[in-house]
Amino acid sequence: MINLRSEHRCFNGSLRFYSHNSLSCQGPMNFAVFLPSKTLKQPCPMVYYLSGLTCTDENFIMKAGAQRIAEELGIILVAPDTSPRDRGIKGEKSGGRPGEGASYYINATKAPWSAYYQMFDYIADELPNLIDTNFPTQKEQRAIMGHSMGGHGAMMIGLRKPERFKSISALAPVCSPIQSPLAQEAFYGLLGENKAEWAAYDTVEILKKNGCKTKILIDQGEADEYLPHNLKLQELSTVVKNQNLPIDIRIHKGYDHSYYFVSSFIEDHLRFHHRYFEQNYHSYN
Amino acid sequence: MINLRSEHRCFNGSLRFYSHNSLSCQGPMNFAVFLPSKTLKQPCPMVYYLSGLTCTDENFIMKAGAQRIAEELGIILVAPDTSPRDRGIKGEKSGGRPGEGASYYINATKAPWSAYYQMFDYIADELPNLIDTNFPTQKEQRAIMGHSMGGHGAMMIGLRKPERFKSISALAPVCSPIQSPLAQEAFYGLLGENKAEWAAYDTVEILKKNGCKTKILIDQGEADEYLPHNLKLQELSTVVKNQNLPIDIRIHKGYDHSYYFVSSFIEDHLRFHHRYFEQNYHSYN
Repeated sequence: MINLRSEHRCFNGSLRFYSHNSLSCQGPMNFAVFLPSKTLKQPCPMVYYLSGLTCTDENFIMKAGAQRIAEELGIILVAPDTSPRDRGIKGEKSGGRPGEGASYYINATKAPWSAYYQMFDYIADELPNLIDTNFPTQKEQRAIMGHSMGGHGAMMIGLRKPERFKSISALAPVCSPIQSPLAQEAFYGLLGENKAEWAAYDTVEILKKNGCKTKILIDQGEADEYLPHNLKLQELSTVVKNQNLPIDIRIHKGYDHSYYFVSSFIEDHLRFHHRYFEQNYHSYN
Repeated sequence: MINLRSEHRCFNGSLRFYSHNSLSCQGPMNFAVFLPSKTLKQPCPMVYYLSGLTCTDENFIMKAGAQRIAEELGIILVAPDTSPRDRGIKGEKSGGRPGEGASYYINATKAPWSAYYQMFDYIADELPNLIDTNFPTQKEQRAIMGHSMGGHGAMMIGLRKPERFKSISALAPVCSPIQSPLAQEAFYGLLGENKAEWAAYDTVEILKKNGCKTKILIDQGEADEYLPHNLKLQELSTVVKNQNLPIDIRIHKGYDHSYYFVSSFIEDHLRFHHRYFEQNYHSYN
Protein backbone atom coordinates (compact mmCIF):
# COMPACT_ATOMS: atom_id res chain seq x y z
CA MET A 1 0.00 0.00 0.00
CA ILE A 2 1.65 3.23 -1.13
CA ASN A 3 0.23 6.75 -0.88
CA LEU A 4 0.84 9.27 -3.63
CA ARG A 5 1.82 12.61 -2.08
CA SER A 6 2.38 14.52 -5.31
CA GLU A 7 2.98 14.02 -9.00
CA HIS A 8 4.72 16.16 -11.61
CA ARG A 9 5.18 15.66 -15.29
CA CYS A 10 8.89 15.97 -16.02
CA PHE A 11 10.72 15.37 -19.32
CA ASN A 12 7.67 13.57 -20.65
CA GLY A 13 7.81 11.05 -17.78
CA SER A 14 6.02 10.97 -14.46
CA LEU A 15 7.73 12.06 -11.25
CA ARG A 16 5.95 10.92 -8.11
CA PHE A 17 6.46 11.34 -4.38
CA TYR A 18 5.04 8.59 -2.19
CA SER A 19 4.85 7.57 1.43
CA HIS A 20 4.19 4.10 2.79
CA ASN A 21 4.14 2.34 6.10
CA SER A 22 7.47 0.57 6.50
CA LEU A 23 7.85 -2.63 8.47
CA SER A 24 11.64 -2.30 8.74
CA CYS A 25 11.46 1.28 9.92
CA GLN A 26 8.22 0.92 11.90
CA GLY A 27 6.33 3.85 10.48
CA PRO A 28 5.94 6.07 7.44
CA MET A 29 8.78 6.34 4.94
CA ASN A 30 9.00 8.65 1.93
CA PHE A 31 10.41 7.95 -1.49
CA ALA A 32 10.37 9.44 -4.97
CA VAL A 33 10.04 7.54 -8.23
CA PHE A 34 10.59 8.78 -11.76
CA LEU A 35 8.83 6.69 -14.38
CA PRO A 36 10.11 7.35 -17.90
CA SER A 37 7.44 7.36 -20.60
CA LYS A 38 8.76 3.99 -21.78
CA THR A 39 7.14 2.40 -18.71
CA LEU A 40 3.76 3.03 -20.34
CA LYS A 41 4.70 0.38 -22.90
CA GLN A 42 7.06 -2.02 -21.14
CA PRO A 43 8.89 -2.74 -17.86
CA CYS A 44 12.11 -0.80 -17.34
CA PRO A 45 15.31 -1.25 -15.30
CA MET A 46 15.90 0.76 -12.13
CA VAL A 47 18.60 2.92 -10.61
CA TYR A 48 18.33 3.37 -6.84
CA TYR A 49 19.89 6.62 -5.65
CA LEU A 50 20.86 7.12 -2.00
CA SER A 51 21.31 10.72 -0.87
CA GLY A 52 23.74 12.28 1.56
CA LEU A 53 23.51 13.71 5.08
CA THR A 54 20.51 16.02 5.74
CA CYS A 55 18.85 15.17 2.41
CA THR A 56 15.26 14.05 1.85
CA ASP A 57 13.77 12.09 -1.05
CA GLU A 58 13.59 15.39 -2.96
CA ASN A 59 17.16 16.75 -3.15
CA PHE A 60 18.45 14.45 -5.84
CA ILE A 61 15.26 14.68 -7.89
CA MET A 62 15.28 18.47 -7.70
CA LYS A 63 18.96 19.21 -8.20
CA ALA A 64 20.76 16.50 -10.16
CA GLY A 65 19.08 16.77 -13.56
CA ALA A 66 18.81 12.97 -13.73
CA GLN A 67 15.28 12.76 -15.10
CA ARG A 68 16.31 13.99 -18.54
CA ILE A 69 18.74 11.12 -18.96
CA ALA A 70 16.47 8.55 -17.29
CA GLU A 71 13.77 9.45 -19.82
CA GLU A 72 16.21 9.10 -22.70
CA LEU A 73 17.55 5.74 -21.51
CA GLY A 74 14.26 4.35 -20.20
CA ILE A 75 15.43 3.99 -16.60
CA ILE A 76 13.20 4.14 -13.52
CA LEU A 77 14.77 6.30 -10.78
CA VAL A 78 14.07 5.38 -7.15
CA ALA A 79 15.11 7.96 -4.54
CA PRO A 80 14.35 6.94 -0.95
CA ASP A 81 14.48 9.28 2.00
CA THR A 82 17.72 9.16 4.01
CA SER A 83 16.11 8.04 7.29
CA PRO A 84 12.87 7.58 9.19
CA ARG A 85 11.29 10.85 10.41
CA ASP A 86 9.04 11.88 13.26
CA ARG A 87 9.55 8.75 15.35
CA GLY A 88 9.54 10.69 18.60
CA ILE A 89 13.16 9.80 19.40
CA LYS A 90 14.87 12.37 21.58
CA GLY A 91 17.32 14.34 19.46
CA GLU A 92 16.14 12.97 16.10
CA LYS A 93 15.61 16.52 14.81
CA SER A 94 18.61 18.21 16.33
CA GLY A 95 20.82 17.78 13.29
CA GLY A 96 23.07 15.43 15.22
CA ARG A 97 24.35 12.06 14.08
CA PRO A 98 22.47 9.78 14.25
CA GLY A 99 19.16 11.49 13.62
CA GLU A 100 16.89 12.41 10.74
CA GLY A 101 18.93 12.53 7.54
CA ALA A 102 21.84 10.68 9.14
CA SER A 103 21.06 6.96 9.10
CA TYR A 104 24.14 5.85 7.15
CA TYR A 105 21.86 3.14 5.72
CA ILE A 106 22.73 0.60 8.43
CA ASN A 107 20.64 -1.51 10.82
CA ALA A 108 20.88 0.10 14.27
CA THR A 109 21.36 -2.24 17.19
CA LYS A 110 21.40 0.35 19.96
CA ALA A 111 18.27 1.82 21.57
CA PRO A 112 16.43 4.05 20.93
CA TRP A 113 17.46 4.07 17.25
CA SER A 114 17.27 0.29 16.81
CA ALA A 115 13.47 0.33 16.94
CA TYR A 116 13.26 2.38 13.74
CA TYR A 117 16.61 2.85 12.00
CA GLN A 118 16.73 -0.45 10.08
CA MET A 119 17.78 1.25 6.88
CA PHE A 120 19.93 -1.58 5.53
CA ASP A 121 16.95 -3.93 5.49
CA TYR A 122 14.75 -1.17 4.16
CA ILE A 123 16.96 -0.33 1.16
CA ALA A 124 18.18 -3.85 0.43
CA ASP A 125 14.90 -5.73 0.76
CA GLU A 126 11.72 -3.94 1.74
CA LEU A 127 11.88 -1.09 -0.75
CA PRO A 128 12.91 -3.18 -3.80
CA ASN A 129 10.04 -5.56 -3.11
CA LEU A 130 7.64 -2.65 -2.73
CA ILE A 131 8.87 -1.03 -5.94
CA ASP A 132 8.66 -4.25 -7.92
CA THR A 133 5.11 -4.83 -6.67
CA ASN A 134 3.86 -1.37 -7.55
CA PHE A 135 5.68 -0.33 -10.70
CA PRO A 136 6.48 -1.83 -14.13
CA THR A 137 10.03 -2.88 -13.30
CA GLN A 138 12.35 -5.29 -15.06
CA LYS A 139 13.08 -7.73 -12.26
CA GLU A 140 16.78 -8.12 -11.49
CA GLN A 141 17.63 -5.08 -13.60
CA ARG A 142 18.59 -2.97 -10.65
CA ALA A 143 21.59 -0.68 -10.00
CA ILE A 144 22.46 1.32 -6.92
CA MET A 145 24.30 4.60 -6.60
CA GLY A 146 24.58 7.52 -4.22
CA HIS A 147 26.33 10.67 -3.08
CA SER A 148 28.48 11.16 0.03
CA MET A 149 26.79 9.22 2.89
CA GLY A 150 24.59 7.74 0.14
CA GLY A 151 27.65 6.79 -1.89
CA HIS A 152 28.80 4.80 1.11
CA GLY A 153 25.33 3.26 1.40
CA ALA A 154 25.27 2.34 -2.28
CA MET A 155 28.68 0.63 -2.20
CA MET A 156 28.11 -1.08 1.14
CA ILE A 157 24.63 -2.40 0.32
CA GLY A 158 25.52 -3.21 -3.28
CA LEU A 159 28.56 -5.22 -2.19
CA ARG A 160 26.62 -7.09 0.46
CA LYS A 161 23.65 -7.76 -1.81
CA PRO A 162 25.07 -8.50 -5.28
CA GLU A 163 21.95 -10.52 -6.11
CA ARG A 164 19.94 -7.32 -5.73
CA PHE A 165 22.15 -4.82 -7.55
CA LYS A 166 24.07 -5.61 -10.71
CA SER A 167 26.14 -2.43 -10.85
CA ILE A 168 27.21 0.18 -8.32
CA SER A 169 28.41 3.75 -8.55
CA ALA A 170 29.17 6.57 -6.18
CA LEU A 171 29.77 10.31 -6.24
CA ALA A 172 32.11 11.63 -3.56
CA PRO A 173 31.33 8.69 -1.29
CA VAL A 174 32.34 8.12 2.28
CA CYS A 175 34.55 5.09 1.59
CA SER A 176 35.34 4.02 5.13
CA PRO A 177 32.85 5.43 7.62
CA ILE A 178 34.55 3.67 10.53
CA GLN A 179 37.63 5.82 9.85
CA SER A 180 35.67 9.02 9.14
CA PRO A 181 35.23 11.41 12.11
CA LEU A 182 31.90 12.62 10.70
CA ALA A 183 30.51 9.10 10.35
CA GLN A 184 31.93 7.69 13.57
CA GLU A 185 29.51 9.82 15.59
CA ALA A 186 26.58 8.14 13.87
CA PHE A 187 28.08 4.66 14.15
CA TYR A 188 28.52 5.08 17.92
CA GLY A 189 24.92 6.14 18.27
CA LEU A 190 23.47 3.43 16.02
CA LEU A 191 25.73 0.48 16.89
CA GLY A 192 27.38 1.27 20.19
CA GLU A 193 31.00 0.46 21.03
CA ASN A 194 31.36 -2.93 19.34
CA LYS A 195 33.74 -2.18 16.46
CA ALA A 196 33.35 -5.67 14.98
CA GLU A 197 29.75 -4.76 14.18
CA TRP A 198 30.93 -1.52 12.57
CA ALA A 199 33.16 -3.32 10.07
CA ALA A 200 30.22 -5.15 8.52
CA TYR A 201 28.95 -1.78 7.30
CA ASP A 202 32.26 -0.40 6.07
CA THR A 203 33.05 -0.56 2.34
CA VAL A 204 36.82 -0.70 2.76
CA GLU A 205 36.52 -3.53 5.32
CA ILE A 206 34.06 -5.43 3.13
CA LEU A 207 36.41 -5.15 0.15
CA LYS A 208 39.41 -6.29 2.19
CA LYS A 209 37.52 -9.34 3.34
CA ASN A 210 35.48 -10.33 0.29
CA GLY A 211 36.89 -8.45 -2.67
CA CYS A 212 34.32 -7.41 -5.24
CA LYS A 213 32.88 -8.83 -8.44
CA THR A 214 30.42 -6.03 -9.14
CA LYS A 215 31.76 -3.19 -11.29
CA ILE A 216 31.94 0.13 -9.45
CA LEU A 217 32.38 3.64 -10.85
CA ILE A 218 33.47 6.39 -8.44
CA ASP A 219 33.73 10.08 -9.27
CA GLN A 220 35.39 12.45 -6.84
CA GLY A 221 35.95 16.21 -6.92
CA GLU A 222 39.53 17.16 -6.16
CA ALA A 223 38.43 20.38 -4.39
CA ASP A 224 35.84 18.56 -2.25
CA GLU A 225 35.88 20.08 1.23
CA TYR A 226 35.20 16.67 2.83
CA LEU A 227 37.94 14.86 0.93
CA PRO A 228 40.93 15.59 3.19
CA HIS A 229 39.45 14.21 6.43
CA ASN A 230 36.15 12.43 6.03
CA LEU A 231 35.78 10.53 2.76
CA LYS A 232 38.79 8.19 3.16
CA LEU A 233 39.22 7.68 -0.58
CA GLN A 234 42.93 6.99 -0.17
CA GLU A 235 42.09 3.99 2.01
CA LEU A 236 39.79 2.67 -0.69
CA SER A 237 42.33 3.32 -3.45
CA THR A 238 44.92 1.28 -1.58
CA VAL A 239 42.61 -1.75 -1.35
CA VAL A 240 41.62 -1.42 -5.01
CA LYS A 241 45.27 -1.39 -6.00
CA ASN A 242 46.41 -4.15 -3.66
CA GLN A 243 43.59 -6.50 -4.60
CA ASN A 244 43.25 -5.40 -8.24
CA LEU A 245 39.49 -4.77 -7.90
CA PRO A 246 37.18 -3.70 -10.78
CA ILE A 247 36.65 -0.25 -9.28
CA ASP A 248 37.21 2.81 -11.45
CA ILE A 249 38.10 5.93 -9.45
CA ARG A 250 38.12 9.23 -11.34
CA ILE A 251 39.34 12.49 -9.81
CA HIS A 252 37.97 15.75 -11.24
CA LYS A 253 39.94 18.93 -10.85
CA GLY A 254 38.15 21.88 -9.25
CA TYR A 255 34.90 20.17 -8.30
CA ASP A 256 33.53 20.38 -4.76
CA HIS A 257 31.08 18.24 -2.76
CA SER A 258 27.88 19.99 -3.87
CA TYR A 259 25.10 19.03 -6.25
CA TYR A 260 26.84 21.21 -8.83
CA PHE A 261 29.37 18.38 -8.89
CA VAL A 262 26.70 15.64 -8.81
CA SER A 263 24.76 17.21 -11.69
CA SER A 264 27.93 17.49 -13.77
CA PHE A 265 28.55 13.73 -13.68
CA ILE A 266 25.13 12.14 -13.20
CA GLU A 267 24.83 11.47 -16.93
CA ASP A 268 28.01 9.37 -16.93
CA HIS A 269 26.65 7.32 -14.04
CA LEU A 270 23.29 6.59 -15.59
CA ARG A 271 25.00 5.62 -18.85
CA PHE A 272 27.39 3.39 -16.89
CA HIS A 273 24.47 1.49 -15.33
CA HIS A 274 22.59 1.45 -18.62
CA ARG A 275 25.39 -0.50 -20.26
CA TYR A 276 24.97 -3.31 -17.73
CA PHE A 277 21.20 -3.28 -18.16
CA GLU A 278 21.62 -3.52 -21.92
CA GLN A 279 23.91 -6.55 -21.68
CA ASN A 280 21.20 -8.49 -19.88
CA TYR A 281 18.26 -7.02 -21.63
CA HIS A 282 17.20 -10.19 -23.35
CA SER A 283 17.35 -12.20 -20.15
CA TYR A 284 14.22 -10.42 -19.04
CA ASN A 285 10.87 -12.09 -19.63
CA MET B 1 32.93 46.42 -7.28
CA ILE B 2 31.51 42.92 -6.93
CA ASN B 3 32.07 40.50 -4.05
CA LEU B 4 32.37 36.78 -4.70
CA ARG B 5 30.28 34.88 -2.14
CA SER B 6 30.95 31.36 -3.44
CA GLU B 7 32.19 29.52 -6.49
CA HIS B 8 31.51 26.00 -7.78
CA ARG B 9 32.84 24.16 -10.76
CA CYS B 10 29.87 22.91 -12.75
CA PHE B 11 29.85 21.16 -16.14
CA ASN B 12 33.42 22.30 -16.69
CA GLY B 13 32.39 25.95 -16.32
CA SER B 14 32.47 28.25 -13.32
CA LEU B 15 29.34 29.00 -11.31
CA ARG B 16 29.65 32.05 -9.07
CA PHE B 17 27.46 33.80 -6.55
CA TYR B 18 28.14 37.50 -6.05
CA SER B 19 26.84 40.47 -4.14
CA HIS B 20 27.36 44.12 -4.95
CA ASN B 21 26.19 47.49 -3.75
CA SER B 22 23.37 48.59 -6.03
CA LEU B 23 22.64 52.23 -6.77
CA SER B 24 19.14 51.52 -8.11
CA CYS B 25 18.19 49.42 -5.12
CA GLN B 26 20.19 51.37 -2.53
CA GLY B 27 22.03 48.51 -0.92
CA PRO B 28 23.39 45.02 -1.48
CA MET B 29 22.00 42.88 -4.28
CA ASN B 30 22.80 39.24 -5.03
CA PHE B 31 23.23 37.58 -8.39
CA ALA B 32 24.59 34.35 -9.82
CA VAL B 33 26.67 34.00 -12.98
CA PHE B 34 27.58 30.86 -14.87
CA LEU B 35 30.65 31.26 -17.06
CA PRO B 36 31.02 28.46 -19.61
CA SER B 37 34.57 27.30 -20.21
CA LYS B 38 34.49 29.06 -23.57
CA THR B 39 34.79 32.39 -21.70
CA LEU B 40 38.40 31.48 -20.89
CA LYS B 41 39.13 31.94 -24.61
CA GLN B 42 36.65 34.51 -25.88
CA PRO B 43 33.68 36.68 -24.92
CA CYS B 44 30.30 34.95 -24.91
CA PRO B 45 26.65 35.99 -25.26
CA MET B 46 24.38 36.15 -22.23
CA VAL B 47 20.97 34.92 -21.16
CA TYR B 48 19.44 36.82 -18.26
CA TYR B 49 17.01 34.67 -16.26
CA LEU B 50 14.43 36.27 -13.96
CA SER B 51 12.95 34.00 -11.29
CA GLY B 52 9.46 33.81 -9.85
CA LEU B 53 7.84 34.76 -6.54
CA THR B 54 9.81 33.79 -3.39
CA CYS B 55 12.91 32.77 -5.36
CA THR B 56 16.47 33.92 -4.77
CA ASP B 57 19.41 34.00 -7.18
CA GLU B 58 19.92 30.29 -6.45
CA ASN B 59 16.65 28.52 -7.41
CA PHE B 60 17.12 28.57 -11.16
CA ILE B 61 20.79 27.70 -10.94
CA MET B 62 20.09 24.79 -8.59
CA LYS B 63 16.98 23.31 -10.18
CA ALA B 64 16.72 24.04 -13.89
CA GLY B 65 19.68 22.11 -15.26
CA ALA B 66 20.60 25.06 -17.46
CA GLN B 67 24.36 25.00 -16.91
CA ARG B 68 24.82 21.83 -18.96
CA ILE B 69 23.33 23.48 -22.03
CA ALA B 70 24.98 26.85 -21.38
CA GLU B 71 28.35 25.09 -21.31
CA GLU B 72 27.57 23.30 -24.56
CA LEU B 73 26.39 26.45 -26.35
CA GLY B 74 28.90 28.84 -24.80
CA ILE B 75 26.30 31.05 -23.12
CA ILE B 76 26.83 33.09 -19.95
CA LEU B 77 23.87 32.74 -17.57
CA VAL B 78 22.97 35.70 -15.35
CA ALA B 79 20.48 35.02 -12.56
CA PRO B 80 19.69 38.06 -10.42
CA ASP B 81 17.86 37.91 -7.11
CA THR B 82 14.12 38.68 -7.31
CA SER B 83 14.22 41.74 -5.04
CA PRO B 84 16.28 43.75 -2.56
CA ARG B 85 16.61 42.12 0.87
CA ASP B 86 17.11 43.34 4.42
CA ARG B 87 16.24 46.97 3.75
CA GLY B 88 14.44 47.32 7.08
CA ILE B 89 11.07 47.94 5.44
CA LYS B 90 8.16 46.90 7.65
CA GLY B 91 6.67 43.70 6.27
CA GLU B 92 9.44 43.02 3.75
CA LYS B 93 9.93 39.53 5.19
CA SER B 94 6.33 38.59 5.83
CA GLY B 95 5.87 36.78 2.52
CA GLY B 96 3.36 39.42 1.44
CA ARG B 97 3.27 41.24 -1.84
CA PRO B 98 5.22 43.44 -2.23
CA GLY B 99 8.15 42.25 -0.17
CA GLU B 100 11.28 40.18 -0.53
CA GLY B 101 10.94 37.87 -3.52
CA ALA B 102 7.96 39.82 -4.85
CA SER B 103 9.25 42.87 -6.71
CA TYR B 104 7.61 42.13 -10.06
CA TYR B 105 10.69 43.79 -11.56
CA ILE B 106 9.10 47.27 -11.63
CA ASN B 107 10.18 50.68 -10.33
CA ALA B 108 8.15 51.37 -7.19
CA THR B 109 6.76 54.88 -6.82
CA LYS B 110 5.08 54.46 -3.46
CA ALA B 111 6.86 54.74 -0.09
CA PRO B 112 8.41 52.88 1.63
CA TRP B 113 9.16 50.54 -1.30
CA SER B 114 10.12 53.32 -3.73
CA ALA B 115 13.39 53.98 -1.90
CA TYR B 116 14.72 50.50 -2.74
CA TYR B 117 12.49 48.56 -5.16
CA GLN B 118 13.77 50.02 -8.43
CA MET B 119 14.04 46.63 -10.06
CA PHE B 120 13.22 47.74 -13.60
CA ASP B 121 16.22 50.07 -13.65
CA TYR B 122 18.31 47.44 -11.93
CA ILE B 123 17.60 44.66 -14.45
CA ALA B 124 17.41 46.83 -17.55
CA ASP B 125 20.43 49.05 -16.93
CA GLU B 126 22.50 48.71 -13.80
CA LEU B 127 23.03 44.95 -13.86
CA PRO B 128 23.84 44.66 -17.60
CA ASN B 129 26.44 47.41 -17.23
CA LEU B 130 27.90 45.70 -14.18
CA ILE B 131 28.02 42.33 -15.94
CA ASP B 132 29.62 43.77 -19.08
CA THR B 133 32.23 45.53 -16.96
CA ASN B 134 33.18 42.47 -14.94
CA PHE B 135 32.86 39.48 -17.28
CA PRO B 136 33.96 38.54 -20.83
CA THR B 137 30.63 39.30 -22.50
CA GLN B 138 29.78 39.80 -26.13
CA LYS B 139 28.27 43.29 -26.02
CA GLU B 140 24.74 43.44 -27.43
CA GLN B 141 24.46 39.65 -27.43
CA ARG B 142 21.94 39.56 -24.65
CA ALA B 143 18.66 37.65 -24.24
CA ILE B 144 16.17 37.73 -21.39
CA MET B 145 13.88 35.02 -20.08
CA GLY B 146 12.10 34.05 -16.90
CA HIS B 147 9.54 31.94 -15.08
CA SER B 148 6.17 33.03 -13.68
CA MET B 149 6.68 36.53 -12.15
CA GLY B 150 10.08 36.42 -13.86
CA GLY B 151 8.45 35.49 -17.17
CA HIS B 152 6.43 38.68 -16.84
CA GLY B 153 9.58 40.60 -15.98
CA ALA B 154 11.44 39.19 -18.96
CA MET B 155 8.70 40.05 -21.44
CA MET B 156 7.95 43.46 -19.96
CA ILE B 157 11.58 44.58 -19.70
CA GLY B 158 12.56 42.94 -23.00
CA LEU B 159 9.73 44.73 -24.83
CA ARG B 160 10.52 48.08 -23.25
CA LYS B 161 14.27 47.73 -23.82
CA PRO B 162 14.71 46.06 -27.23
CA GLU B 163 18.14 47.68 -27.56
CA ARG B 164 19.22 45.69 -24.51
CA PHE B 165 17.73 42.28 -25.28
CA LYS B 166 17.61 40.75 -28.73
CA SER B 167 15.33 37.82 -27.90
CA ILE B 168 12.82 37.07 -25.16
CA SER B 169 11.31 33.90 -23.77
CA ALA B 170 9.11 32.93 -20.85
CA LEU B 171 8.03 29.81 -18.98
CA ALA B 172 4.55 29.95 -17.47
CA PRO B 173 4.68 33.76 -17.33
CA VAL B 174 2.27 36.15 -15.70
CA CYS B 175 1.12 37.80 -18.95
CA SER B 176 -1.00 40.60 -17.57
CA PRO B 177 -0.18 41.34 -13.94
CA ILE B 178 -2.71 44.17 -13.79
CA GLN B 179 -5.44 41.57 -14.37
CA SER B 180 -3.90 38.92 -12.08
CA PRO B 181 -5.25 38.84 -8.49
CA LEU B 182 -1.89 37.58 -7.22
CA ALA B 183 0.05 40.39 -8.89
CA GLN B 184 -2.43 43.19 -8.21
CA GLU B 185 -1.57 43.09 -4.51
CA ALA B 186 2.05 43.86 -5.31
CA PHE B 187 1.16 46.55 -7.84
CA TYR B 188 -1.00 48.36 -5.28
CA GLY B 189 1.84 48.29 -2.79
CA LEU B 190 4.53 49.36 -5.23
CA LEU B 191 2.65 51.85 -7.41
CA GLY B 192 -0.43 52.88 -5.49
CA GLU B 193 -3.84 53.48 -7.06
CA ASN B 194 -2.84 55.10 -10.34
CA LYS B 195 -3.75 52.43 -12.91
CA ALA B 196 -2.17 54.39 -15.76
CA GLU B 197 1.18 53.77 -14.12
CA TRP B 198 0.37 50.06 -13.84
CA ALA B 199 -0.18 49.67 -17.57
CA ALA B 200 3.41 50.70 -18.35
CA TYR B 201 4.54 47.50 -16.62
CA ASP B 202 1.96 45.14 -18.14
CA THR B 203 2.99 42.97 -21.09
CA VAL B 204 -0.49 42.73 -22.60
CA GLU B 205 -0.92 46.51 -22.41
CA ILE B 206 2.53 47.14 -23.88
CA LEU B 207 1.78 44.77 -26.78
CA LYS B 208 -1.60 46.40 -27.43
CA LYS B 209 0.03 49.82 -27.59
CA ASN B 210 3.34 49.12 -29.31
CA GLY B 211 3.17 45.65 -30.82
CA CYS B 212 6.41 43.75 -30.78
CA LYS B 213 9.35 43.23 -33.10
CA THR B 214 11.38 40.98 -30.81
CA LYS B 215 10.74 37.24 -31.20
CA ILE B 216 9.20 35.68 -28.09
CA LEU B 217 8.90 32.00 -27.16
CA ILE B 218 6.40 31.06 -24.43
CA ASP B 219 5.97 27.59 -22.92
CA GLN B 220 3.04 26.88 -20.65
CA GLY B 221 1.98 23.75 -18.78
CA GLU B 222 -1.65 22.87 -19.33
CA ALA B 223 -2.00 21.51 -15.76
CA ASP B 224 -0.41 24.63 -14.21
CA GLU B 225 -2.28 25.46 -11.01
CA TYR B 226 -1.86 29.22 -11.62
CA LEU B 227 -3.09 29.12 -15.22
CA PRO B 228 -6.85 29.39 -14.62
CA HIS B 229 -6.81 32.61 -12.60
CA ASN B 230 -3.45 34.32 -12.40
CA LEU B 231 -1.34 33.97 -15.51
CA LYS B 232 -3.78 35.55 -18.00
CA LEU B 233 -2.39 33.72 -20.99
CA GLN B 234 -5.71 33.94 -22.82
CA GLU B 235 -5.50 37.73 -22.72
CA LEU B 236 -2.04 37.55 -24.28
CA SER B 237 -3.12 35.01 -26.90
CA THR B 238 -5.92 37.31 -28.02
CA VAL B 239 -3.53 40.22 -28.59
CA VAL B 240 -1.04 37.97 -30.40
CA LYS B 241 -3.79 36.76 -32.71
CA ASN B 242 -5.41 40.14 -33.27
CA GLN B 243 -2.13 41.90 -34.02
CA ASN B 244 -0.37 38.95 -35.64
CA LEU B 245 2.66 39.28 -33.35
CA PRO B 246 5.83 37.10 -33.60
CA ILE B 247 5.07 35.33 -30.33
CA ASP B 248 5.06 31.54 -30.25
CA ILE B 249 2.88 30.09 -27.46
CA ARG B 250 3.20 26.35 -26.81
CA ILE B 251 0.93 24.47 -24.42
CA HIS B 252 2.25 21.25 -22.85
CA LYS B 253 -0.17 18.64 -21.61
CA GLY B 254 0.20 17.51 -18.01
CA TYR B 255 2.91 19.96 -16.91
CA ASP B 256 2.46 22.08 -13.79
CA HIS B 257 4.05 25.34 -12.60
CA SER B 258 7.07 23.80 -10.87
CA TYR B 259 10.74 23.62 -11.75
CA TYR B 260 10.05 20.09 -13.01
CA PHE B 261 8.30 21.93 -15.85
CA VAL B 262 11.04 24.56 -16.19
CA SER B 263 13.79 21.94 -16.32
CA SER B 264 11.91 20.00 -19.00
CA PHE B 265 11.92 22.93 -21.41
CA ILE B 266 14.96 25.02 -20.47
CA GLU B 267 17.02 23.43 -23.23
CA ASP B 268 14.57 24.59 -25.90
CA HIS B 269 14.77 28.12 -24.55
CA LEU B 270 18.55 28.33 -24.48
CA ARG B 271 18.68 26.92 -28.01
CA PHE B 272 16.05 29.47 -29.09
CA HIS B 273 18.21 32.33 -27.84
CA HIS B 274 21.36 30.73 -29.20
CA ARG B 275 19.95 30.88 -32.73
CA TYR B 276 19.63 34.66 -32.48
CA PHE B 277 23.11 34.98 -31.04
CA GLU B 278 24.50 32.89 -33.90
CA GLN B 279 22.90 35.10 -36.54
CA ASN B 280 24.78 38.12 -35.24
CA TYR B 281 27.90 36.40 -34.19
CA HIS B 282 30.19 38.11 -36.64
CA SER B 283 28.93 41.56 -35.74
CA TYR B 284 30.93 41.29 -32.54
CA ASN B 285 34.38 42.78 -32.47
